[in-house]
Amino acid sequence: MSRAVLLTSSPDRPGLVAAIAGALTDAGLNIVEVDSHLELGWFHQRVEVEAVAADGDAVAALQRAAVVAGVDLDRTRITADPGAPRPTALLVSRSPHCAADLLARADAGSLPIDVRVVVSNHDDLALLAARWGVPFVQATEEPAVVDAVEAAQAEVVVLARYMRVLSPELCERWRAQAINIHHSFLPAFVGADPYRRAHERGVKMIGATAHYVTAELDAGPIIAQDTARVSHRDNVEELRRRGAELERRVLADAVRLHVDDRVVIAADRTVVFDH
Amino acid sequence: MSRAVLLTSSPDRPGLVAAIAGALTDAGLNIVEVDSHLELGWFHQRVEVEAVAADGDAVAALQRAAVVAGVDLDRTRITADPGAPRPTALLVSRSPHCAADLLARADAGSLPIDVRVVVSNHDDLALLAARWGVPFVQATEEPAVVDAVEAAQAEVVVLARYMRVLSPELCERWRAQAINIHHSFLPAFVGADPYRRAHERGVKMIGATAHYVTAELDAGPIIAQDTARVSHRDNVEELRRRGAELERRVLADAVRLHVDDRVVIAADRTVVFDH
Amino acid sequence: MSRAVLLTSSPDRPGLVAAIAGALTDAGLNIVEVDSHLELGWFHQRVEVEAVAADGDAVAALQRAAVVAGVDLDRTRITADPGAPRPTALLVSRSPHCAADLLARADAGSLPIDVRVVVSNHDDLALLAARWGVPFVQATEEPAVVDAVEAAQAEVVVLARYMRVLSPELCERWRAQAINIHHSFLPAFVGADPYRRAHERGVKMIGATAHYVTAELDAGPIIAQDTARVSHRDNVEELRRRGAELERRVLADAVRLHVDDRVVIAADRTVVFDH
Amino acid sequence: MSRAVLLTSSPDRPGLVAAIAGALTDAGLNIVEVDSHLELGWFHQRVEVEAVAADGDAVAALQRAAVVAGVDLDRTRITADPGAPRPTALLVSRSPHCAADLLARADAGSLPIDVRVVVSNHDDLALLAARWGVPFVQATEEPAVVDAVEAAQAEVVVLARYMRVLSPELCERWRAQAINIHHSFLPAFVGADPYRRAHERGVKMIGATAHYVTAELDAGPIIAQDTARVSHRDNVEELRRRGAELERRVLADAVRLHVDDRVVIAADRTVVFDH
Repeated sequence: MSRAVLLTSSPDRPGLVAAIAGALTDAGLNIVEVDSHLELGWFHQRVEVEAVAADGDAVAALQRAAVVAGVDLDRTRITADPGAPRPTALLVSRSPHCAADLLARADAGSLPIDVRVVVSNHDDLALLAARWGVPFVQATEEPAVVDAVEAAQAEVVVLARYMRVLSPELCERWRAQAINIHHSFLPAFVGADPYRRAHERGVKMIGATAHYVTAELDAGPIIAQDTARVSHRDNVEELRRRGAELERRVLADAVRLHVDDRVVIAADRTVVFDH
Repeated sequence: MSRAVLLTSSPDRPGLVAAIAGALTDAGLNIVEVDSHLELGWFHQRVEVEAVAADGDAVAALQRAAVVAGVDLDRTRITADPGAPRPTALLVSRSPHCAADLLARADAGSLPIDVRVVVSNHDDLALLAARWGVPFVQATEEPAVVDAVEAAQAEVVVLARYMRVLSPELCERWRAQAINIHHSFLPAFVGADPYRRAHERGVKMIGATAHYVTAELDAGPIIAQDTARVSHRDNVEELRRRGAELERRVLADAVRLHVDDRVVIAADRTVVFDH
Repeated sequence: MSRAVLLTSSPDRPGLVAAIAGALTDAGLNIVEVDSHLELGWFHQRVEVEAVAADGDAVAALQRAAVVAGVDLDRTRITADPGAPRPTALLVSRSPHCAADLLARADAGSLPIDVRVVVSNHDDLALLAARWGVPFVQATEEPAVVDAVEAAQAEVVVLARYMRVLSPELCERWRAQAINIHHSFLPAFVGADPYRRAHERGVKMIGATAHYVTAELDAGPIIAQDTARVSHRDNVEELRRRGAELERRVLADAVRLHVDDRVVIAADRTVVFDH
Repeated sequence: MSRAVLLTSSPDRPGLVAAIAGALTDAGLNIVEVDSHLELGWFHQRVEVEAVAADGDAVAALQRAAVVAGVDLDRTRITADPGAPRPTALLVSRSPHCAADLLARADAGSLPIDVRVVVSNHDDLALLAARWGVPFVQATEEPAVVDAVEAAQAEVVVLARYMRVLSPELCERWRAQAINIHHSFLPAFVGADPYRRAHERGVKMIGATAHYVTAELDAGPIIAQDTARVSHRDNVEELRRRGAELERRVLADAVRLHVDDRVVIAADRTVVFDH
C-alpha cells in the first residue's frame, strides 16, 4: 500500500487539525502516525498516511487534501515513499570518519541516502569514494562545488567535516538542505580547533552538533547533539578520537531525521518529530 | 483558559483522527498538542486541548466530543487541569531514598502529586513522613494497607521500595494505578537482591525500572528505565549507592508521566507519549 | 584498621613512585588503591593506605613516609579516615533544589558532609534549613558571610545556586575549597540566565557544571559535568525543571569527589581520580 | 623512547607495590601511568613505563623487573609498544555491521588491530572482506575455523556477530583471547533473538554486551556494555537498527581495551583499567 508524509507549518487556528484530518479521510487516506507542536502561534504537524485503497496514490491524495485543508503550501512538504533513499552529495576535506560512516551506512541500506557524489577541496578521500564506487570530484572554487552537487541532482548536501565556509549566497541557495557537523557541543567552541580548546578548558564532556548551514558560522538551526564523558587522561589526540565517534553518530542521526521528513525549521530553531 | 487531556485507545478505522478532531473543534476546543501511535490494529492517541472561549469548560466539552467521535469510553481517560497535583499514597519499607525524593519534589512543587499518606510495614520512615507533615500509617496486613490508601482517597499508589508483594486481588484492584520501582534493568535480575547479583555477574552498567504493578512479580508494563555506568571498583555497597540515584530518578519520571496522562497500557507494554 | 589517603603532586622524576611506595611500606602501611597521572612534567598521585598493624596510626605513618619520599609537602594532602563527614557550609539564594538535595543526602548518610550552616542573601530557604536542623544565617555583606562560614569551622564551601559573585580576595582565601554549580554546560552560556539562552539557541541538550570558584566568573577548574537530552517541546520553564535534576546530581558528584580527596587542581584544570 | 606495559595479578602482600616500583626504577624504567585494584586478596596492577635511556629496551627491562619483584609470571603480561596493531581474526556470519565497523577502524588506524583474516560460516561477507583487502575464509567445521585463525597468527579473535557456539575445547584454547558481542544487556535476554524478546517485554532501553568467550553461553566475563533509549514507536526492526549502533560501538570499545592491555580476568569478572 502506498505511503506518504505531510510536514506542514501554519499559523494556528481553531479547527486546523480537524480540517487536515478530515481532508485526509475524504481523500481516502488513513493516518498512521501524527505528531504536532504548537509554539508562538504556529502549528507544526507531521502526518504519515497510507492509501486505504490498495491501488491508491497517497501523494496525489495528500496534495489534494492539503489544498482542501487550506494549509500554506509554501511551508508544506509532501514526500512519497518514506524510507526510499534520497539523492545526496557529501562535501568533505581530509578527515575520513564521517564520510566513511555515511558511505558504509548507505551501502548497507541502514540509512536511506543514495550518495551520488563526494566533493572535496583535497584529494585525500578519493580512494574512500572509489572503495564504495561513488564518483569523486575535487573542486576548490564554489561554482565548481555547486556544479558537482547539482549535476548529481542531490536533494541533500551533507558537510561531513568540510573545512570551508560556504558563501552566504550558497547558504541561501541550499537553505534547509545542507547539514553540517560541528565537532563541539554548540554554542561552546564555535569555530576552529574545538578539541584543543576543550582540552585547555578542562571540560569533562565533549560534544558534537549537527545543524543546518546558514550564513553565520556554526549558528544554524540545530538538528541533533550528543555528548560523551572524557577525563584528564584524554589528551587532545584522544579527544579527537572519542569525538570522531560522536560526530559520525550525531551526523548520521541528523541526516536520518532530515530524510525521514521529521525536521521543521522554525525561526532559528528546529522542531524534530523524532521517534 | 481551561485545559484538559484526552487519552484514548480504539481499534483503528479510517477517519478516526478526523472524527475526534472534528468533534473537538465543534465542541469549541483548540488542540494544543496531539500525539498518536498505531500498533496491532489499535490507535492510541493523546490530545491536549484548551477551551476557545475564555469561560469554556474543556472537560465537559471533551466528554461531549468523545461521545460524538464514538471512541470506546472504557478505554478513554479525560483529565481536567493537567499539571494539578494528584492525590497519591506512598508505600514504603525501610529504604528512604525514593520516598524522600518524592516527598521533597511534591513539597517543592516540581512533581504534581499531593502525597496524602505514607504507608509502611515498618516504622523506620515515620520521621521522614513527619518531616514533610504527611500522615504515616504502619500496616502489615493488606486490608489495613488498602484502608489507609483509600481513606486518603489516593488515585495514584507509588511503591517506593516497598519490599512486599501485593496479592493478585490487590494488583487487579489497583490496575494501572500502582507504580513500582525495581532496582535493576528488567528483565535482568528479577526478584531479590539485584545489586549483589549484578556485582557477581560483573556487569558494567546497572539499571532501574519503573512499572505498573501486576500479579506476576516484576513483570508489569514498563513505564521508564535508566542505566548508569559502573566499574570493578564498585562493590555491592557502592552499586547500591549509585543505584539509589537511578531508582529515585526513574521512579519520579514514571510518576510524572503517569500523572500527566502520558501512559497507555497496551497488552503487557506501555505507550508513553513522552515529551 | 586505620585508613588514610595521600594526594600529592610533584615534578616527575625517575623513581618517584618507588620512593613513595617504599616509604609507605617501611612506615608499616599497605597500599589499598593507587592511581596516578603524568602530564606536562608533573606527576599526580592518589594513594589509599591502611596500617598493617591493628593499632597503627595511618596518618602519622603517612606523614613520616611523605617526608622520607621527599614529596613537596605544600602540594600534598593527607587525610585520615576517608569517608568521615567533612564540615561544610552551604551558600544559597532562592532556589532550593541543590541545597535540599545536599541536606537530604547528608542526613541520610549518603554523602559524607556535615552541613554546619546555611548562609543566604535571602530568607527564602530558612525553613528548609530548619527542617533539617541546620543553623541558617542571613548575610548580604561578604564579611558577614565569611564570619558565618568560619564560625562553623567549615572546610568545604558549597555554592548551591548562590547568585552572588565572590570578591577576588574571597576566591583566593577559599581557593580549592569552594565549589560552585553553574546551570549550563560550560563554557557554553557563561553568566546569567543560561536556560533562556539555551532555549533561544535551540540546543538539543542542556548541561550543568560544578567547578572550583575562582576570580573569573564561571571559569574555575571543572570538577564534574553532565548533560541531558531536551526537545523543542521543552520551554524555558521545562528546561529549568530538567536542568535542576542535572544541577543537583552534578553538584553532589563534585562534592563527593572533593571530600573523598579525589581531585587535584593542576593549573586551570582538574585531575579527578574518579572511581 | 621505548614504551611497554606490565599487567599483573598477585595475591596481595605488604610491600608489593614498592617491590614492583623499585624493581622498575632499578631496571631504568620511568613509570608513566599506574593503576591498581585490590579485591578478595588479589592485587591487580597495570603499569605503563618508558625506558629512561634513549636506547633502553623497555620490554627486556620489564621482564627483569618482574622477576626481581617476584610477581607470578603466569599471571603477568608484558607488551612492547602499546598502540601497535595486534594480529586479529574476525569470525562472522551474515550481519555485516560489526565486521564492517572493525575493518574500517583498522584501515583508518583508529583501532590498533591488524585484521589478518575474516572467517565465516556463510559467504555473505566475502565482498566486504575483499573491499578492505582482507583474506576471507569460508569454514563451517570448527577445525577449519581454527586452522584459518592460527594460519593468520592472530592473537585476538573477535566474534563479530558470529552466530555459532564454540566448543568448550575451543573456548578453553582461546581463553582470554576471544571476544564476543551479544546483542542485549546481559544477563537479560541470553540466547537467541534478543531484540524480538526485548520488544515483547516492552523495555524502554536496549543494550549490547562484549565479553570473553567461555563454554557457558553468553556468560563469559563482561568487558564492556552500553545501552540506548528506545520507545513504543520502535518495532523489532527498528530495535535491530538502533541496536546495531550499540553493538559496533561496544565491540570496538572492548577490542580497544583488550589490545591496550587494560583488561584482567578475575574469576568470572573483569578488572578494566579504562581511561
